Amino acid sequence: MDFNETYGRYLAAVNAALAGHPLLQGDAQHTDVLPDAPADGSIPEPLRSAMRYSLLLPGKRLRPVLLLAAYRLLADDWETALPYALGLEMIHTYSLIHDDLPAMDDDALRRGQPTNHLVFGENIAVLAGDGLYSLAFETMLEAALAPGNLYALPTVYEIARRAGVRGMIAGQTLDVKLEGTQPRKDMVHYIQRHKTGDLLTAPMTAGLMLAGADEARLSAGGTYGAKLGHAFQIVDDLLDLRGDATILGKRPGVDEQRGKMTWPAVYGEAASREDAARLVSEAKEALAVFGERAAFLRKLADKTLIRVT
Amino acid sequence: MDFNETYGRYLAAVNAALAGHPLLQGDAQHTDVLPDAPADGSIPEPLRSAMRYSLLLPGKRLRPVLLLAAYRLLADDWETALPYALGLEMIHTYSLIHDDLPAMDDDALRRGQPTNHLVFGENIAVLAGDGLYSLAFETMLEAALAPGNLYALPTVYEIARRAGVRGMIAGQTLDVKLEGTQPRKDMVHYIQRHKTGDLLTAPMTAGLMLAGADEARLSAGGTYGAKLGHAFQIVDDLLDLRGDATILGKRPGVDEQRGKMTWPAVYGEAASREDAARLVSEAKEALAVFGERAAFLRKLADKTLIRVT
Repeated sequence: MDFNETYGRYLAAVNAALAGHPLLQGDAQHTDVLPDAPADGSIPEPLRSAMRYSLLLPGKRLRPVLLLAAYRLLADDWETALPYALGLEMIHTYSLIHDDLPAMDDDALRRGQPTNHLVFGENIAVLAGDGLYSLAFETMLEAALAPGNLYALPTVYEIARRAGVRGMIAGQTLDVKLEGTQPRKDMVHYIQRHKTGDLLTAPMTAGLMLAGADEARLSAGGTYGAKLGHAFQIVDDLLDLRGDATILGKRPGVDEQRGKMTWPAVYGEAASREDAARLVSEAKEALAVFGERAAFLRKLADKTLIRVT
Repeated sequence: MDFNETYGRYLAAVNAALAGHPLLQGDAQHTDVLPDAPADGSIPEPLRSAMRYSLLLPGKRLRPVLLLAAYRLLADDWETALPYALGLEMIHTYSLIHDDLPAMDDDALRRGQPTNHLVFGENIAVLAGDGLYSLAFETMLEAALAPGNLYALPTVYEIARRAGVRGMIAGQTLDVKLEGTQPRKDMVHYIQRHKTGDLLTAPMTAGLMLAGADEARLSAGGTYGAKLGHAFQIVDDLLDLRGDATILGKRPGVDEQRGKMTWPAVYGEAASREDAARLVSEAKEALAVFGERAAFLRKLADKTLIRVT
């Protein structure tokens, strides 16, 4: 198993499928020129361009790659899992678009480029977020409709729940509401577990579920995802503290300016580094049940720390 | 069949199920007091209150009532259809919350009460919309997971597609983008077909699909929904032109002020009245295949016109 080659293969598959999504075809249109009424069954401009713009900005595609890798822990193909991987990336992208809105974090830069609302306007950015959320479900449900996979429906439900009002949106709510308040341990745990953690746990549990995993394997995969997600968010917080815009793809230092309840804000920088390293180590341990097949995911966990060590 | 009694029974069932949704329990909290970290598996405040606020404002519940009635065209119970009816009302409500945002239509009044962002703030209103969208899928998928109904998954997909980027969101995009431009027939047809039409067609097709309808019945129900939805939107446009805030539950006259591409703006008031009446008549004709069982839906179509005649 060559890590870079494997990651590259998953990444290429995800990028090709996102760029090739039948509903998103065509070059981006940033103009306000209005053509004839759009054809039924297509996404009208500028909605299509706005959705495509944010979805195709270069990214690590960590969530879909994780989902494919999780599925591959038990299955021999990965094509079956691709629509769910795409759905997850669409959900992630919708959350970034809404997160960046002026009424939310009011960010100007994302993945190194102007945020959606700066390019397409705030109204279209709201709709592009809603649209990607919908396209995620449309894509996953369409795949689930194909006969043959008993686990497709529970997989979609798992992703919906993790992304939902007890998951990512719950974390996002506290992240927004607690800006500028006194850092509190219980709250930062909650925010990191849900805002980032749930959407990095989902690819593991969903990928395994789709492959027909038993309870023990689902739980082991879920633990890996949650620990990895937590480590990943702490590293992100540390990078925001110290990083430059080139690495981050967004403006650094904003967490502190905004009084965001980050891990370093509660525990300090040194303890945060230690916590991230410990979480990565625990994430890898959780994979024991999968033996050698989990080599890629172990290496992936290690890579999380590289950015801050 | 007593129309008012039947409508009342559906309405009561929908209202009771919405108010009783296990994740939305508790009184509304409009304060900014922060309690302990929320319990995992619950919706954190103020997200829960914001979702509940808009969802429980008194409404006609036209979409869920239609779905229950459509299901009842072929089935003898209606409880099976209830989660999908709730999902549809949640999707409708999320679209209203986002539609009312300052960056969108910037409305202050909805269903006779202050809009979500005026009560909870713009950031929470964005998340409450996202949250209701998610809760719709969580609710429908949870129901679809119960064994026994072969048609549950296609039903969820049908609702997702009608609410999605080729459906409601597509119509919404053009509605927003074309504000203040010269009224055009092709565009107003597109907007009304998708913005309102798709979410009034969905309850018919979804309800029938869940009951196992054949293609002919699905198509007949879809025609009814589309025609009814169109008539409904024309009537809404006419009310906006003439109505008062008490009937509308929102400020009248705003379509014209904003240069919204409405039916009366393109065809004039007199032709609009005629079109609405013709569409209602065509909607009723489409129900022929269902015989006497469709008496309620025929009457419902007639009622659409009462508000403007």
